[in-house]
Amino acid sequence: MEKFGLIGRLIAVPGKRDELAALLLDAAAAAESFDGCELYAVHVADDDPDGVWVTEVWRDAAAHQASLQLESTKAMIARGRALIAGFGESRKLRTLGGKGLS
Amino acid sequence: MEKFGLIGRLIAVPGKRDELAALLLDAAAAAESFDGCELYAVHVADDDPDGVWVTEVWRDAAAHQASLQLESTKAMIARGRALIAGFGESRKLRTLGGKGLS
Repeated sequence: MEKFGLIGRLIAVPGKRDELAALLLDAAAAAESFDGCELYAVHVADDDPDGVWVTEVWRDAAAHQASLQLESTKAMIARGRALIAGFGESRKLRTLGGKGLS
Repeated sequence: MEKFGLIGRLIAVPGKRDELAALLLDAAAAAESFDGCELYAVHVADDDPDGVWVTEVWRDAAAHQASLQLESTKAMIARGRALIAGFGESRKLRTLGGKGLS
C-alpha cells in the first residue's frame, strides 16, 4: 500500500540549529499521537552546520494535511519562526514500502 | 541515542525506474534480517521520472558498512548495475530521533 513521504531541510538561523533540532524532536514527540503518521525522523549533518533534515512517512497526504491544522502543530510552527532562516530541499514522495514501515 | 541516517537518490536508466524501485524493495526485504538496520524505505516522485529515493536509518555507520560486505548485498548491487544510470543526491545524516524509530 503506497504511502506519502516527505524529505525536507530547514535552514536554521546561524547558531540556532541545535535549538531548531530540539524543537523538531518535540514535534516528533507530538506526532506520536497523530493519526496516520508513521515516521517523523529528525537529522542533522556534520557538513551542514545550519541544516536540520526531517524525513517523514504518512499513511497518505490527507493525514499529513490534517496534522497541519492541529493547534499543537500551529504552536510548534510559531515557536519555530524565530529559529528558521529558510527552507532548503523539499521533496514530496510516493513511499512504495520498505523495512521499518507498517 | 544518535543513529546513522542516509538519504540517497538513484537515477534509473530511462524507462527502468519501476524495475529499479522493485529491486530496491527486494533490498529492503533482505534488510529485514540485517542487524542494525531500522529503516530502509523506497520512494519515487511524480516529478522525478527517473529517480528512486531511499531513506535509511541504521544503528550506526558500522552496521551500515557491514551490510555492504554481505553476499546478498553484493548480488543486489550487481543486479542493479544494468538499471542505474547514475547517482543523485546523497546525504549522510546524524539521526537524532523521532517517531517511528526505536
